[in-house]
Amino acid sequence: MKPVKNMNISELEECAKNIRERILDTVSRHGGHLSSTLGAVDLIVAMHYVFDVEKDPFIFDVSHQAYAHKLLTDRWEKFSSLRQFGGISGYTKPSESPYDYYVAGHSSTSVSLAVGAAKAIKLRREENERIPVVMIGDGAMSAGMVYEALNELGDRKYPAVIILNDNEMSIAKPIGAISRILSQAMASPFYQRFKERTEKMLEHLPDSAMYMAKRMEEGIRMITPGILFEEMGLEYIGPVDGHNIQQLIETFQTAKRMKKPVIVHAQTTKGKGYKIAEGYYEHWHGVGPFDKESGKSLKKSSKVSATQVFSDKLCELACKNEKIVGVTAAMPSGTGMKQLMEKFPERFWDVGIAEQHAVTSMGSLAKEGFKPFVAIYSTFLQRGYDQVIHDIALMNLPVAFAIDRAGIVGEDGETHQGAFDISYLRAIPNMTIFAPRDNATLELAVEFAAEFPTPCAFRYPRGSMLLENGRYLATPFEVGRAEYLQRDGEILLIGYGNGVGRAVAVADMLKDNGIEAAVLDLRFVKPLDIEILADAANRFEKWFVFSDGAKMGGVASAISEAIMFNKLNNITIYSFEYEDKFITHGNTKKVEESLGLLPEQIKEKIYSIIRG
Amino acid sequence: MKPVKNMNISELEECAKNIRERILDTVSRHGGHLSSTLGAVDLIVAMHYVFDVEKDPFIFDVSHQAYAHKLLTDRWEKFSSLRQFGGISGYTKPSESPYDYYVAGHSSTSVSLAVGAAKAIKLRREENERIPVVMIGDGAMSAGMVYEALNELGDRKYPAVIILNDNEMSIAKPIGAISRILSQAMASPFYQRFKERTEKMLEHLPDSAMYMAKRMEEGIRMITPGILFEEMGLEYIGPVDGHNIQQLIETFQTAKRMKKPVIVHAQTTKGKGYKIAEGYYEHWHGVGPFDKESGKSLKKSSKVSATQVFSDKLCELACKNEKIVGVTAAMPSGTGMKQLMEKFPERFWDVGIAEQHAVTSMGSLAKEGFKPFVAIYSTFLQRGYDQVIHDIALMNLPVAFAIDRAGIVGEDGETHQGAFDISYLRAIPNMTIFAPRDNATLELAVEFAAEFPTPCAFRYPRGSMLLENGRYLATPFEVGRAEYLQRDGEILLIGYGNGVGRAVAVADMLKDNGIEAAVLDLRFVKPLDIEILADAANRFEKWFVFSDGAKMGGVASAISEAIMFNKLNNITIYSFEYEDKFITHGNTKKVEESLGLLPEQIKEKIYSIIRG
Repeated sequence: MKPVKNMNISELEECAKNIRERILDTVSRHGGHLSSTLGAVDLIVAMHYVFDVEKDPFIFDVSHQAYAHKLLTDRWEKFSSLRQFGGISGYTKPSESPYDYYVAGHSSTSVSLAVGAAKAIKLRREENERIPVVMIGDGAMSAGMVYEALNELGDRKYPAVIILNDNEMSIAKPIGAISRILSQAMASPFYQRFKERTEKMLEHLPDSAMYMAKRMEEGIRMITPGILFEEMGLEYIGPVDGHNIQQLIETFQTAKRMKKPVIVHAQTTKGKGYKIAEGYYEHWHGVGPFDKESGKSLKKSSKVSATQVFSDKLCELACKNEKIVGVTAAMPSGTGMKQLMEKFPERFWDVGIAEQHAVTSMGSLAKEGFKPFVAIYSTFLQRGYDQVIHDIALMNLPVAFAIDRAGIVGEDGETHQGAFDISYLRAIPNMTIFAPRDNATLELAVEFAAEFPTPCAFRYPRGSMLLENGRYLATPFEVGRAEYLQRDGEILLIGYGNGVGRAVAVADMLKDNGIEAAVLDLRFVKPLDIEILADAANRFEKWFVFSDGAKMGGVASAISEAIMFNKLNNITIYSFEYEDKFITHGNTKKVEESLGLLPEQIKEKIYSIIRG
Repeated sequence: MKPVKNMNISELEECAKNIRERILDTVSRHGGHLSSTLGAVDLIVAMHYVFDVEKDPFIFDVSHQAYAHKLLTDRWEKFSSLRQFGGISGYTKPSESPYDYYVAGHSSTSVSLAVGAAKAIKLRREENERIPVVMIGDGAMSAGMVYEALNELGDRKYPAVIILNDNEMSIAKPIGAISRILSQAMASPFYQRFKERTEKMLEHLPDSAMYMAKRMEEGIRMITPGILFEEMGLEYIGPVDGHNIQQLIETFQTAKRMKKPVIVHAQTTKGKGYKIAEGYYEHWHGVGPFDKESGKSLKKSSKVSATQVFSDKLCELACKNEKIVGVTAAMPSGTGMKQLMEKFPERFWDVGIAEQHAVTSMGSLAKEGFKPFVAIYSTFLQRGYDQVIHDIALMNLPVAFAIDRAGIVGEDGETHQGAFDISYLRAIPNMTIFAPRDNATLELAVEFAAEFPTPCAFRYPRGSMLLENGRYLATPFEVGRAEYLQRDGEILLIGYGNGVGRAVAVADMLKDNGIEAAVLDLRFVKPLDIEILADAANRFEKWFVFSDGAKMGGVASAISEAIMFNKLNNITIYSFEYEDKFITHGNTKKVEESLGLLPEQIKEKIYSIIRG
């Protein structure tokens, strides 16, 4: 392919068309992000034309919209391995390509990165050669972090071009004042004409009115959507048509020449170029394999997801108990809050990408006597960590954290793995932390959380639980009580959450090898069931721990602590949790295999420990 | 005292005067926050006059400005115990008084709390009886969390009154675009007159111009400082004189009647009423005991603080190595970054209260080849937790976290204790975590961090290190290497960071009781020195662990993990870290005594374990 920089407009348009086809082909085959990345193709083509990817930091916010960038930079062929194990990541990733400046799987980091890059460029005296270019969606504008960064950028006035890709929605419905301000842009042509006419009128005012006139002219700026940014010290250009490559190129060139922080407000259509997805929203954000002609999904999981079980149960409880309220931070479908927001629009809220605010605002609801559920992915709760400590746990309020996507999340990879929640939550006083093993106990977990009088958190995986429902009787949760699923055996397998399913699968295999294993469902990682652990310490020397979480500070670590501090001797603990590494993307089973976490692999290891 | 609600204006003014005297008296005797809380007295008196503290949620942001509220609500007498152990907290605290709605020691949570309270009020159909009232300083406006909350508040339009206490600075110099926008208010009387005149002029335009005129009138609003808020869907009133109680009362009454989210922009003077502090800034934010007449500090610590040692060393290195850069989030003096910002204004930045942005923006500087130091308090790094994981560790970039105020911080109490950093950082892959034991090794820690090629974090306490400098030879840090300070003994004491000083003090006392203790400085909690631990496992059965950090997931926990996973048997570990509770305020020694962490208490415990 000819370098973008050498193409003329019609070649660029052709190039964008080819990129869209390649994206559509690949995503329809393997799944991936679709609508936002299709909408951003023309922006990215124009970016590559105007800016220099060899020198300028290309910073993509939540980089799932950056597929076109991958295709334009050295991954046209490899792109067919998108999001597969060992293949191309769904996000920008410097270890994959020198053209990927930074990782970005969490939203709203881009402007901070641009500020850092701009500082570096200034220190290195490269202002005449390099400029940071950001592409950020309007949905990402709701996170406070962007505002912290814009506040500094507007103050220090580093040259940077921020392309605001406004498709009038984030993953779900747009939330909040910002999106309203952006949408005023729709009326903009009128205002532009109005502004011109007013300026002409002002020219004819007598001299004595000139100061007033100047002020007025400034006043008129208010009616453009850029006022918010201009007030913050940022230049604003827009709105421009985000699918008109020629116009984009001219605008980017202007912005680049300004040598100031500039926001280019581009309006795009999600799903652009794939008629079936245009105008359809949340459904087409991230998709599994589908038929290109009909748009119909190809694979349907026959198993009910943990998210669905959670959502249905919470819905049932919310019908009976009007004190139950809840929040999601821009993940209504992903967390199952959508049906609750639809059924109880007064009691369930989407606050946009704003995890800090989501957590703290539920604190005062709890203080007022309500029972809030914060439904959130493990990886995104990291964004509200201080708020969990300072605004929930310190107040000892009954907020329940329903932690979805706990453990390996599959194709999204490193940035999204739900590996750390056990470790970072366990250190917080007043927190009670537990986990269900199957669908039936997930329902019981929701019931337990709904009644629990102080802060609590429970976790469940993406997709469906490993343990088949109905294999064990579902017994209600009691604080700090573990439960034997099989009391006797030569060794002890301890499972936590989805880890119970893994423990049971391993126990089944060991049985085939003639080894009987006791299986304990830990249920609570905080507080631990010291009594049952003391009993186990008398009966088992080798303990094997299973949990979909990091080993460091994780479940086996908590058990080690308990054994040490409670002087339960002569035990060796083997942990089958995540090693101290960031975990790559790909089909969850393949990722787990690479970590040696498949039941058959574990069985082999245990067998060799015992019989080896 | 007569209830505020029944006072007339001159009585209210007298009341404010008495409150100021009481604050000044108490703070000059025991220390505390001064200038911001003096500046807010009239606002709080007017708040109590207009709103009903029995019903309305009074929400104070970083509540160190709320002393007047404490004095007006049930703590006039007890106020003399301010910030002392067992006494009145320096922040609002519901367990102390029913009139304190929420804890607030970290900044910028108030608007989120107001949104939650407003939702509760709506659900409980109490809109005609209750309204949330927020008091927030301009400095707190730089944190993204406020913006997340304003974004929802402006969208959903819940009734709430937000009193913006604008004293034109946060703790230090005001940062960023927001403070610039607020300062435009200074010119406001002119704009008010201009607006009136313009409106008159517009009245005389011909009918055909009326639509345009209306638009113009809207346009004119732009030149008031409230535009930013109005654009976000919030009503704006101001600026008003924050020391004119009559005007404040009228304004608050108006705001209350509006039944919308309203920002009241009040301009105040920090230190108001104490001439010596008026106009002096950072110095008078938080103070120790001082002489009221002269303003001179009464107690001066003769020991050099760890912060000072860090600051001097970093300054020295930054002179030699121009790649060293650094950031503070609104704590230039507290973190010792002030002298660096003064010496190297191009390389050291205060980004305001914006921990998320602070962390991430240093990421791209590291990517560009610089060596960033993030100087931050342990408790505030919680605000940037996701950014440490997603933007630094995942990229494996050489950002150094200099964690100040690690351990018990004394009078600030629960909200500020530096208890969790070891636990929450240890779970993060690619992180190297270590700590100095005295001033000399703190210098070496800064040197080590400056050269370290991947993410690292080191911690040191508020005030001075426990271990006397020079007692042990300072040896350079080597990754993952612990160091015996005394190799032989009957038992093993393991210290980490400031815990080494405690271990040594305890060892000295045990020696007096005839018990020889080996002392190991762990130095690295990640990675651990498995070799030295294995050697120790062969030589000692009882291990005693000392660290100024939480027990859960802390240092002893890490060691337990290592013992378990490395099969080092027959060891019992006793941890002298923080129990799983939030830790109260007061003189650090008194707090430690209450936790049984004084060397003499620990010595007794160990003695009874060994000889008991």
